[in-house]
Amino acid sequence: MQYDKHWEELYFPDFSPYQSLDPKKGINLVSADPFAPDCELPEAVVKAYQDVIVEGRGLHYAEGNGDAALHQTIQKKLKEFNGIEVDTEKELLITAGSAFGLYLSIRMCICPNRGDEVINFDPTFAENINDVKVMGAKNVFCSVYPEDDFQVRGENLEKCITENTRVIIVTNPGNPTGVVYTRETLEMIAQIACKHDLMVVCDQCFERNVYDGREYVSMVTLPGMRERTLNVFGTSKDYGLSGLRLGYVVGPEKLISMMKIATSNMVGTVPAAAQYAVIAAMENSEYIEKWNERFDRRRKLGYEILNQVPGVVCKLPHGGYFHWVDIHRLGSSQEIVKYLVEEAQVAVGGGHWFGENGEGHIRIMYCRPKSDEIYKIAIERIAEALKKLKVNE
Amino acid sequence: MQYDKHWEELYFPDFSPYQSLDPKKGINLVSADPFAPDCELPEAVVKAYQDVIVEGRGLHYAEGNGDAALHQTIQKKLKEFNGIEVDTEKELLITAGSAFGLYLSIRMCICPNRGDEVINFDPTFAENINDVKVMGAKNVFCSVYPEDDFQVRGENLEKCITENTRVIIVTNPGNPTGVVYTRETLEMIAQIACKHDLMVVCDQCFERNVYDGREYVSMVTLPGMRERTLNVFGTSKDYGLSGLRLGYVVGPEKLISMMKIATSNMVGTVPAAAQYAVIAAMENSEYIEKWNERFDRRRKLGYEILNQVPGVVCKLPHGGYFHWVDIHRLGSSQEIVKYLVEEAQVAVGGGHWFGENGEGHIRIMYCRPKSDEIYKIAIERIAEALKKLKVNE
Repeated sequence: MQYDKHWEELYFPDFSPYQSLDPKKGINLVSADPFAPDCELPEAVVKAYQDVIVEGRGLHYAEGNGDAALHQTIQKKLKEFNGIEVDTEKELLITAGSAFGLYLSIRMCICPNRGDEVINFDPTFAENINDVKVMGAKNVFCSVYPEDDFQVRGENLEKCITENTRVIIVTNPGNPTGVVYTRETLEMIAQIACKHDLMVVCDQCFERNVYDGREYVSMVTLPGMRERTLNVFGTSKDYGLSGLRLGYVVGPEKLISMMKIATSNMVGTVPAAAQYAVIAAMENSEYIEKWNERFDRRRKLGYEILNQVPGVVCKLPHGGYFHWVDIHRLGSSQEIVKYLVEEAQVAVGGGHWFGENGEGHIRIMYCRPKSDEIYKIAIERIAEALKKLKVNE
Repeated sequence: MQYDKHWEELYFPDFSPYQSLDPKKGINLVSADPFAPDCELPEAVVKAYQDVIVEGRGLHYAEGNGDAALHQTIQKKLKEFNGIEVDTEKELLITAGSAFGLYLSIRMCICPNRGDEVINFDPTFAENINDVKVMGAKNVFCSVYPEDDFQVRGENLEKCITENTRVIIVTNPGNPTGVVYTRETLEMIAQIACKHDLMVVCDQCFERNVYDGREYVSMVTLPGMRERTLNVFGTSKDYGLSGLRLGYVVGPEKLISMMKIATSNMVGTVPAAAQYAVIAAMENSEYIEKWNERFDRRRKLGYEILNQVPGVVCKLPHGGYFHWVDIHRLGSSQEIVKYLVEEAQVAVGGGHWFGENGEGHIRIMYCRPKSDEIYKIAIERIAEALKKLKVNE
């Protein structure tokens, strides 16, 4: 049986902690889906989705790159939220899920098996690492540190660049670290990209989940970046529309025109009905602020409780809805994940999936439980269980 | 701006004939979507889709590889319709659209930029050609001929094979030729694949649109093929659920296990609500037979009328819902497509998109018009317009 051995390099955690939970006692803090079972969407969003189907639309192919109504709504959102003016005919790609938008954006910049290198800040979103592996490119990891609040050090980034570097991947807010990059950090990355003629792929899936009134900057708005940025947006994470599979990419006309054909060829048109739920969500996006209030309470609660555990350290996240918890003095990522299922009946994610610096960490989603009370029970159970472990020096 | 120049090789027709139609007089015979505006789905299918959304499901992430209910239904369909027994846990991949299933299946077998070769029967489905190009592999075209009813000649296939050949792509029924491969042809392909240790990717998107009670054989059921076939199935074409974006692949456990991770990484989970419309469609699949009766009438009508035009030749298609019409004695593909829009106000597809042997042909979809009467008007307008052209020798 002949197949490309690159595929064997894909990694996905083989232990699914939530599947090992006691159905009566277990609490799942793994999934990144804010929907299940907690947050409710505004009625307008659910109704928009229903109406499309009741009216007999949505079962047909959509326009190749999405309907005009969706383009208009995204154009408005990009202008108002991101400060990006977009010619939707030329600079906007609609994709069936942002995962594909991200994959394709990276792949546009990479020629497989030529020795191309891709820079990821480490720890990083696990799928970036896999995407690069299967393209036959090399992951180059630029370490980021909790003592810098996971911002990027310019001198470290410079050291990662070789003549084979093609693209820098920026996940903002960062997953799993919860960093929101400052304007200063992004400008530094932009300057380095311009200096070395590199592309930047910027994934903004959690862009609306930012706390403390922190400034949020879209990479493509920075000087010199319009022609070298592929800016990837989703609707699963911040809007919570994960079942609909709709994302979009803003980029230079030349690349977007090729990406439209590639998308049509590789995944086909967008899910037709989904477009109208997304339009309604963007027109009613104040619901996200309400969700954020809830996430913010949990963010502070988890931060407080976890840091009281001897040997455990975590930062207060700036964005997203997850704690990135250093547990290396208690055990390995996998050991702690398994231990927490058994001892506390709580499922969390192992950090080893998120890059070379991910080992010794766990990721705890605080978007997930049905109520703040359940979240509190979960986080206290985690803390109690971890307190029983020996702290290594 | 750095990007992989392979992407420039993608081809998509730059002239969209249906966009040039007079809105009042024009008739569109381009789209492959049987839905717009002709065939109606059974109420059960539409209702199943609505119910999922009304019940508040469908907005969340589905199970990574699809829900258990979908697996059961597909398992039953594969057994009853295709004669394939499948362990859905190990041998079934659900994808967001069969286009991605097809892309990924080919890509599994190819190591990019290594000189790998992929055999396509020519003319072939246009997206196969694009898929192979962007992988940095080489399209090798094995010509098929109308005098053979577009079946494959074993000696021609053997001549295409080199030490770099990795995979043979079979689209069955064939698009654009409408061929349904005989058991004899498929067994010949299977024997050659086994002899040279090649993979076969078999795309069966039109498998339920087969006429005259012709035998339909699924590649994976042939001796020796279970371990070397990736069999791709869709729901857009035969089931007419093009807006839902749901396809699936049956293959060897080892490849499917990697393809699950790749799919999760590259496009994410399946559209959640779509699964339940697909289940209902598979449970009520007799509606396809009714659609086929309509397509069959048009197939015979188009065949009869087109062959009366001097210089025009087409075969009676065995499957799918399109005429593949040789017009090379009247002009080039692009000339005739433009001429038919202007002269007859009918949009058809150019053949030059479908491989080296596609030039000099047009593809006419007979699934599309609202009624048989409109189809008759369209095909007569085409015939009248073509009769005005000079026949070259």
